[in-house]
Amino acid sequence: MSGEWWDVAVIGGGPAGYTAAIRLAQKKWKVLLVEKDQVGGTCLNRGCIPSKALIHLARVKRKAETATPMGLSFAKGLVNWEMVQNWVQQVIGSLRSGLETILRNSGVVVERGIGDIIDEGRIQVEDGGGKRREVKCRAILLATGSVPAKPSFAPEGLVLTDEEGLFLPRLPSSLIVIGGGSTGVELAWLYASLGVSVTLLEMMPRLLPAADAEISDLLDRSFRRQGIKVLLSSRVTQVLPTHNGIEVRTESGETVTGSVVIGAVGRKPNPPQNAVSRLSLQEVSDLAPSRCYQWGQCLVVAAGDLLYGSGTAHGAIAEGVETARMLDQWLRFGQFPPYAAPAPVPYCAFCHPEVAGVGITEEAAYKQGRAITVGRFLIRASGPARIEGEGDGLIKVLADSKTGKILGIHMVGPYVTHLAGEASVLVSQGLTVEEGLKAVRIHPSWSEGIGEALWAALGEPLHSLHLGRR
Amino acid sequence: MSGEWWDVAVIGGGPAGYTAAIRLAQKKWKVLLVEKDQVGGTCLNRGCIPSKALIHLARVKRKAETATPMGLSFAKGLVNWEMVQNWVQQVIGSLRSGLETILRNSGVVVERGIGDIIDEGRIQVEDGGGKRREVKCRAILLATGSVPAKPSFAPEGLVLTDEEGLFLPRLPSSLIVIGGGSTGVELAWLYASLGVSVTLLEMMPRLLPAADAEISDLLDRSFRRQGIKVLLSSRVTQVLPTHNGIEVRTESGETVTGSVVIGAVGRKPNPPQNAVSRLSLQEVSDLAPSRCYQWGQCLVVAAGDLLYGSGTAHGAIAEGVETARMLDQWLRFGQFPPYAAPAPVPYCAFCHPEVAGVGITEEAAYKQGRAITVGRFLIRASGPARIEGEGDGLIKVLADSKTGKILGIHMVGPYVTHLAGEASVLVSQGLTVEEGLKAVRIHPSWSEGIGEALWAALGEPLHSLHLGRR
Repeated sequence: MSGEWWDVAVIGGGPAGYTAAIRLAQKKWKVLLVEKDQVGGTCLNRGCIPSKALIHLARVKRKAETATPMGLSFAKGLVNWEMVQNWVQQVIGSLRSGLETILRNSGVVVERGIGDIIDEGRIQVEDGGGKRREVKCRAILLATGSVPAKPSFAPEGLVLTDEEGLFLPRLPSSLIVIGGGSTGVELAWLYASLGVSVTLLEMMPRLLPAADAEISDLLDRSFRRQGIKVLLSSRVTQVLPTHNGIEVRTESGETVTGSVVIGAVGRKPNPPQNAVSRLSLQEVSDLAPSRCYQWGQCLVVAAGDLLYGSGTAHGAIAEGVETARMLDQWLRFGQFPPYAAPAPVPYCAFCHPEVAGVGITEEAAYKQGRAITVGRFLIRASGPARIEGEGDGLIKVLADSKTGKILGIHMVGPYVTHLAGEASVLVSQGLTVEEGLKAVRIHPSWSEGIGEALWAALGEPLHSLHLGRR
Repeated sequence: MSGEWWDVAVIGGGPAGYTAAIRLAQKKWKVLLVEKDQVGGTCLNRGCIPSKALIHLARVKRKAETATPMGLSFAKGLVNWEMVQNWVQQVIGSLRSGLETILRNSGVVVERGIGDIIDEGRIQVEDGGGKRREVKCRAILLATGSVPAKPSFAPEGLVLTDEEGLFLPRLPSSLIVIGGGSTGVELAWLYASLGVSVTLLEMMPRLLPAADAEISDLLDRSFRRQGIKVLLSSRVTQVLPTHNGIEVRTESGETVTGSVVIGAVGRKPNPPQNAVSRLSLQEVSDLAPSRCYQWGQCLVVAAGDLLYGSGTAHGAIAEGVETARMLDQWLRFGQFPPYAAPAPVPYCAFCHPEVAGVGITEEAAYKQGRAITVGRFLIRASGPARIEGEGDGLIKVLADSKTGKILGIHMVGPYVTHLAGEASVLVSQGLTVEEGLKAVRIHPSWSEGIGEALWAALGEPLHSLHLGRR
């Protein structure tokens, strides 16, 4: 090939794109990563990282302010919101600079600009100032991610997006969060913990509609006890400015007023700009599940939120890894292997109590007519829970009644996001309950809760009363 | 049989004994548990639970007092040591009452008294007042645990045991901890975090001699940075009272002075009292690894610290489960199956940074001449570490170079005790590095560190620089 050429051009530097870029560069391919804004994507710059930073701060505050029964007393913590926001930017900046170093060290060339496919094996990079140049490449990975969905029921600007909701100029006195998915419950808990009066509205009859229902119910009860006003089955029909704030009206006739409204109503794909790119993406989508579209000598692939709209960062990372594997095969042998769907992707919410789960839910098993055995452990019975004064929590294991294979693990309680790796290994490897119990878990640790739930699934609970099993 | 009889008499109500008792009662056997003091043993009453409670308090204090860079400021926390000690007793009491309820609900009869074997299938229970009665049983489980080893170098009473070290009447101004194993490093960190000036002496050239050496080294550096005075290769030869405290002298001529000295120098078995019991225990030990001694119609078994002196609570629980399985088989069929050693038992220390590991260490692999591949992840590169401002941490995976099987995982860093369940599943199931990587780990979570170390073992690190591998 003549002129500037690359083995792979990756368009979009979020978790799916940067992961694939690093991997391919490690395999010694020549990789160009085109990112219109900052590497790290939504997750690092406007999503998971800033939200987890704020949530960490809220956790520390909560723990310190409730330490008195232990004999440790703190005066109420003072929050300097401007400092908080500066610190969040520092965290983002330091992680981004780390990621840039990793990309550079791997040999990925990162270029700031808008990338678009213009022809077979050719992309165009436009920098901010309208300057364009063309680049040739053997393969193109589209990974332009997603953007927050805009609610249909509100005039422009009145309802903040979930991204904007992380960077409020000041702490509001009252807040309405529309949407009780992961992002919504995190925002609601975060601000409630910082002293804001919060109302959380969810269209469906329960929070976290994708989670196991028992987990949702326990979270709901805990949120209400923590003073969050939760309104379920509440479809918002109108949002209006009033003289002293913003009014949210629901289908059932309810009216809620707050000074700030955040809409956490999901995300939608952020397709590339030009017609050729869009057409290529359409071809890739039509060829699902292969995720590849061969255009003459060039392979076009897509990964991450661009394909689904709303995913998780870890799901996108797993896809980035798999996409890189496929592209590597294609670059080597001219053929791409079938796309291997990653193991079940865990869901999570970093509120308090935390939520994490992976694999089949009880409702899904019921709908599929699968015979399952359920083992439950209420974390309040455990040493760590008594020590930390935490009562709200449930770990639930679902196993195939015949084979004993672990099909799903669903958890709500302190630190359960840290335990999800263990749950993921158990589920993704198709281990049985008895195999899962061979592992010795540290006493006293939160991870014992998974062991206890596994024992309960065998009908032999150890550190808990017999709750029955089905 | 005539008179009072039981299927199993368990002597000792610590983790090994109570676990086996619950399991056997669940299998509908008639179980008597004889405990001379309180159920829960050392772990619940004088060990893991009170120490983890104090450590939790110290953690909350540390996190709150270092929150200022986040924009959250607390005045220095006030510790009311009397309230702290009362709270620790409440935690112990509530967990003990929970355990008593579980034992009762399972059908275990708990009797307060000293249990001893007096003849084939006969034990004697002596209550505190010298009243004795005899009980017949088909099987006897000896699980009388361990007691702190007394240091040889000190006059009686001058050096507190590690158990006494948890219940100090007041916070000392300075403290010397002799022994840098798990218990010693926990005590040293705990009191240092509460403002006590702490010196930690270890006879061996490193802390936590049973851990992987790199893990020990990182802990050591972190301790020194946190202001703990660590003296390695320091064998204590003498402890003397002085006019203003206690003086500790080492073989190398060093002298350290403190107001309180705690000896965390290991534990020794606490064998039963009478000659017949001791003889039975000897028979059981001689028949290792079967752990069973058949005396006519009666089976005598032993489990837990009584056999080794110094174990972990989770190791004892795993043994209790296995012993119950064996006893159940024996009671059913008159034959006992071979003892199945539990999977590798994790080691741990709940100081900060936390330590946890399972499986083979790098030194052990080297000594055995095993070809291994090592993958490392420095946690400071991760999102959670940047968010929490925690820099000290390493996760290290050891895999067989030929088969890829994960042989050991060793960790030092925040929350790693919670991740040990995942490490235990990977090691105990003999999964390969690639199998371990099929699991999708939540982003951003501490558990990703295990994934990153697994990637590093493949030579394909993702969120970290290439540190090289062997």
